[in-house]
Amino acid sequence: MGFGRVGKTFLQIVHEKIEFCQKRYGLDLKLHSICEIDGALFSSEALDLSQVFREFSSLSLLRGSPYWKTGLHLQDLLNSIEPGVLVECTPSNIKSGEPGLSHLRQALDSGWHVVTANKGPLVVDFRGLREKAKEGGVALKISGATAAALPTLDVALYSLAGTEIYRIEGILNGTTNYILTRMREGMDYKQALEEAQSKGIAEPDPSLDVEGWDTASKILLITNTVMDTDLTLKDVKVEGITAVPIHLLDEGREEDKTLKLLGEFSREEDFKLEVSPKLIDRSHPLFGVDGANKGITFTTDTMHSVTVTGGKSDPRGAGAALLKDIINIYWR
Amino acid sequence: MGFGRVGKTFLQIVHEKIEFCQKRYGLDLKLHSICEIDGALFSSEALDLSQVFREFSSLSLLRGSPYWKTGLHLQDLLNSIEPGVLVECTPSNIKSGEPGLSHLRQALDSGWHVVTANKGPLVVDFRGLREKAKEGGVALKISGATAAALPTLDVALYSLAGTEIYRIEGILNGTTNYILTRMREGMDYKQALEEAQSKGIAEPDPSLDVEGWDTASKILLITNTVMDTDLTLKDVKVEGITAVPIHLLDEGREEDKTLKLLGEFSREEDFKLEVSPKLIDRSHPLFGVDGANKGITFTTDTMHSVTVTGGKSDPRGAGAALLKDIINIYWR
Repeated sequence: MGFGRVGKTFLQIVHEKIEFCQKRYGLDLKLHSICEIDGALFSSEALDLSQVFREFSSLSLLRGSPYWKTGLHLQDLLNSIEPGVLVECTPSNIKSGEPGLSHLRQALDSGWHVVTANKGPLVVDFRGLREKAKEGGVALKISGATAAALPTLDVALYSLAGTEIYRIEGILNGTTNYILTRMREGMDYKQALEEAQSKGIAEPDPSLDVEGWDTASKILLITNTVMDTDLTLKDVKVEGITAVPIHLLDEGREEDKTLKLLGEFSREEDFKLEVSPKLIDRSHPLFGVDGANKGITFTTDTMHSVTVTGGKSDPRGAGAALLKDIINIYWR
Repeated sequence: MGFGRVGKTFLQIVHEKIEFCQKRYGLDLKLHSICEIDGALFSSEALDLSQVFREFSSLSLLRGSPYWKTGLHLQDLLNSIEPGVLVECTPSNIKSGEPGLSHLRQALDSGWHVVTANKGPLVVDFRGLREKAKEGGVALKISGATAAALPTLDVALYSLAGTEIYRIEGILNGTTNYILTRMREGMDYKQALEEAQSKGIAEPDPSLDVEGWDTASKILLITNTVMDTDLTLKDVKVEGITAVPIHLLDEGREEDKTLKLLGEFSREEDFKLEVSPKLIDRSHPLFGVDGANKGITFTTDTMHSVTVTGGKSDPRGAGAALLKDIINIYWR
């Protein structure tokens, strides 16, 4: 679903890696459809990915293809072939969750696995979607919506299996981390934001990032998955970086600390779920995570703390995270 | 197998987490036997872990228990109950692989899964063991032998699924990292080693660590697993930290670099598999991994580089890694 930047890059990666996936994982990947708002490219036999990239590289070319069915509904499509994986890449709306929420519900109800890069549906109805997946015995994989190429949920669920996680701290948004890094180096907020926009790191409307809602959505989804909770955005205390007090930046420089927009969950003393700019010191494992990079620290009972940093912060990283989730549904 | 520090700590953690594992993973963990060189505690019904810790906390008490069978062979034990998981915790011998190698072969041949904290058998015959596991359709899980609580293989195989890994760099040995950290702060090698020994970080005979063989074993096992190769210790170029040139330390301080014993695999240009002290600069993701901490960086095609740091470096961390592997065999 969705032939925008992420959807297109995802298909590009699949195209590059078809043989690798066959050889390494015994997975025979087939593309049956590319769905857009007004119709879908569809073949019950499987589309030829080389042809897709040779001939239909833009949406308008897609619509001119002989495989294009104007007005084809997702439900008809889901009913017409064997269940597989629906890959959701439409734009994220964290208020209504639509149109992704309807896509995910239909797919899960029809016995399809879901892999999503779209946070919206998960932020709006994580509980309902998780239950649908459970009832249908299908997978709902959300790496693409929770920091993409930075492994977060995999590590918590798989690498830390058997531990109790007490605290999660994450630098989960590249745009705000880039801005704060540049501010530490002396820029003011406005300069740093403009530079980030000119480099394509920040979006023209950066409000979801700089006001903390992107980080809030990610820490919420990570917490709900790891702790098996049903929290919503209303449970997250959110403060962005649009009005960072100057004294925090000065204090950071003086005391060899660094200011980071942290998404935090904790149940160590009181329950805490919040997003705010925080000074962290040199001994903190996320101290060196600068620029548009991301990182996450899990604090556990038996394994102490484990930190993951890195992972490409761009559509290619997001596309690779979608492919990873698909492989992990089928490969054992 | 093995009721030493790691084996005992592993059972302690299982004991603490029996209910948690039932509730969280639906796993009903049962202990049938604790095997030692001269016999085994054994019950076909399952041993009572509370009783084990109340009454048989030492090996001599174990041997006085009514469940103790002197001279019971592993093979008899494997044949007498339904196949489960053999957890190998006997001392590591990277030359002969024994006694662990025989344990692992017998277990895999008898249709048992294997989880091992013992590097020896894997270093000596990884290929043979992997083939036995494959033929028998059972798991051979080796987190406990490859940096334990620091997730290494999980991340490479699961979180980076679908990527091609071009380079692996790891600080994989806490003892040598502790010594180098103290040397950077001004101590000489002898002082730093003695301090590490007095703190229980270095063993009385530290040669496997300081000469680089522990790191070599780990980077070898990680490479063989991730790249699906059959390399042996002979293929690893190994240099330890017993004779680090003073000029490297001085250079590090002057140029704001830090000296680390790195285990490295690379296939970017020429093939490389080596262990040596290397200066890394501040922008390297492993720069801040100091003291007895460990870390690993994977460089991939589609997700760029991903780094994991942390994880408890002690028997409790190792025990937790063994439990993690068991959970991941059964839980999906």
